[in-house]
Amino acid sequence: MPESKNYFIGIDIGGTTVKEGLFDEEGNLLGKVSVPTPPLIDEAGYAAVVGGIEQLMAEAQRPILFVRGIGLAIPCPVPASGNITMMANIQIDATGLAEALRERCPHAVVRYVNDANAAAMGEIWQGSAQGAQNMVMVTIGTGVGGGVVINGDVVYGAFGAGGEIGHMCLNPGESRTCGCGGFGHLEQYSSASGVVSNYLRECQMRGVEPIELSGPSDSRSVFQACREGDKVAWAAVETMTDYLAQALSIIAAIVDPDEFLIGGGASASADVYLEKLIEKYQRFTLTVSETTPIKVAELGNDAGIIGSAYVALRAAK
Amino acid sequence: MPESKNYFIGIDIGGTTVKEGLFDEEGNLLGKVSVPTPPLIDEAGYAAVVGGIEQLMAEAQRPILFVRGIGLAIPCPVPASGNITMMANIQIDATGLAEALRERCPHAVVRYVNDANAAAMGEIWQGSAQGAQNMVMVTIGTGVGGGVVINGDVVYGAFGAGGEIGHMCLNPGESRTCGCGGFGHLEQYSSASGVVSNYLRECQMRGVEPIELSGPSDSRSVFQACREGDKVAWAAVETMTDYLAQALSIIAAIVDPDEFLIGGGASASADVYLEKLIEKYQRFTLTVSETTPIKVAELGNDAGIIGSAYVALRAAK
Repeated sequence: MPESKNYFIGIDIGGTTVKEGLFDEEGNLLGKVSVPTPPLIDEAGYAAVVGGIEQLMAEAQRPILFVRGIGLAIPCPVPASGNITMMANIQIDATGLAEALRERCPHAVVRYVNDANAAAMGEIWQGSAQGAQNMVMVTIGTGVGGGVVINGDVVYGAFGAGGEIGHMCLNPGESRTCGCGGFGHLEQYSSASGVVSNYLRECQMRGVEPIELSGPSDSRSVFQACREGDKVAWAAVETMTDYLAQALSIIAAIVDPDEFLIGGGASASADVYLEKLIEKYQRFTLTVSETTPIKVAELGNDAGIIGSAYVALRAAK
Repeated sequence: MPESKNYFIGIDIGGTTVKEGLFDEEGNLLGKVSVPTPPLIDEAGYAAVVGGIEQLMAEAQRPILFVRGIGLAIPCPVPASGNITMMANIQIDATGLAEALRERCPHAVVRYVNDANAAAMGEIWQGSAQGAQNMVMVTIGTGVGGGVVINGDVVYGAFGAGGEIGHMCLNPGESRTCGCGGFGHLEQYSSASGVVSNYLRECQMRGVEPIELSGPSDSRSVFQACREGDKVAWAAVETMTDYLAQALSIIAAIVDPDEFLIGGGASASADVYLEKLIEKYQRFTLTVSETTPIKVAELGNDAGIIGSAYVALRAAK
C-alpha cells in the first residue's frame, strides 16, 4: 500500500493554549503539540503556530508539503465568507495568520471555524454522532455554544452566528444581562456559570448558606450537591433544564435534527440532568420529533483539533 | 434552438383546492389548472390529480413523457425520508398517489414537500429571495408556517418538522393551548388568528367593545383598525411583533440566514407591522446579525406550485 501524501492539521486556538493535531485522511491522530496562546497579530505569533506544524510533521517524518489542509477553531463567530469581524477573548489577525500558514504550507487549504462548530464536526467525524448528517450539538462550558450540522456540513451563518445557541433569547423579561449585552439568553440559565448563578439565587431566595464554590462557573460542585440530595442545588438544575429543554424543542421546530449532543465541561455531569432534560424536552416538543435522541458527546478536549482538521479535510476535497 | 423536453409539475394540495402548474426548466409557468380537493386515497382521487397533468400537457401540446419531475406541496410535516406519518386537514394516501403519478409519468421523479417549505423554495427560485442560499421564510396565515433554506436546499428535518416555526415554544407559562396541543407557541400570538385572539383579549381586559370581525382569523380588520389609529388594535399587533421578533432573533442565533421573508395572507398587511418588527428584531439579536434584512415575500398564492415544481426540478438534476 503506497503511503498517503495527504495530511491535515487541526488547530484549536483558546484563550490560554493553542493545541495542534496532525491527522491522516482516515482521521488517525498522529501527533499533538500545544503552546501558550501568543498574541496572533505579528510574525512572532504566527511563527509559534507554524512552528507547531513543523514540529508535528518532523516527528511524523513527513515533508511539510504533504499538508493539504489546516483548520483553525477560534472562539468567535466565523461567517461563511470567512471574514471575521467580531473578536472574543483572543488577539488575532485572522488574515495575517492564514497568509503565514499558506506560505509555509503552500498545498494546504486554510479554513477558520468557530470552536463550538468545530466540536460538532469532530463529533460527527469521530465522536458520539459518527456519520450523522443532521445534528445539533450544545456545548455547555462557562458559556453555551453550539454547532448545527445540516447535510453533513456545519452551518456557519451569514454573519457567523450559526449555532450561537447560548444567545437564544428565551426570557425577554429578564433584567440581568448576558455577557453579550442581551437579556434572558439561554447561556444565563444553562451554562456552567448559569447553573452557579441559578444556585446562588435560590440560596438567596431561601435564605440558605451556599456550599463552598471554587469560582463563578463551578457547576461541578452544584451537580455534586445534587447527587448528595441537596434540594437547593436541585432547584438550580431544574431551572437549567427548563431552559435547555425549551431551547432544544425550539431547535427541533426549526431544523429538526436526527439527534442532539450535549458537550463541553458540564457534559461530564450529565448523569445528574440528562434524564430530566429528555423528559422536559418531550413535554415541550411537537409530537413528530419528541423522540429525537439526546446524547452525550465523547471527544472532550480533543473535539476542537479533530473537528477543525475535518473541516479542512472536507474543504480540500 | 431545439425545443426543451424537460417539464416540471408543481402541485399544491390544500384543504379545499388542488392547484397544478406546468413549468419549463427556466421556470416559465406554461399553464395552471385547479380542482376541488378530492379524498386522495383511491383511484378516483388519484385520477383527478393525474387528469390535471394530462390537461396541462395537452394544452401545451407536449407529450406526457416529457414530464421529468412532479412536486407535491402538502399541509403536513414531510421528513427527509419522504415517509409521511402525520396528516393535517387532508385525506391522502401519499404512497398511493405517488405510485399513480409515476405510472402515468414514468420519466418523472416525484417529491413531497411541506407547503410552507415549498413556498420558501418558490421565493428563492422566482420571488423576493431569488438566488439566496440561506434564507428563512415565515408564512403567516391562519397558523404560522416556515421554511428554512440552507445551502440552497430546504431543511426537511429528520421527522418533517424542519421550518415548523409556528410551534416554537416561546411562553412556557401560557395556559391556553395551541392547535397542536402545545402551549405558548409562536402561532398563538403571531398568526392571523393569534392577532385576532390578542385583540379580543385586549378588548376584554380594557372593557372595550371589539370592532366587527368576519371570523376568528380576520386579522385584516385588526390591521385596518391599526391604520385608523385604534389603540387596542395596536396593542394586539405589539404582542404579535414582540413574539415574532423574538422568534426571528432565535432563528438568527441558530442558522443565521442571509435574510428573512414574511409571507402568507398576513404579509399583505406588512405595511402596518414590518417597521416595528425590524426595530424589535434588532433589539433582541446578537450584534453580528442585527442587520439581517426582513423582507416581504412576493409570490402569493402561486408560491406552492412554483416551489414544489422547483423541488422536483432540483431532485431531477
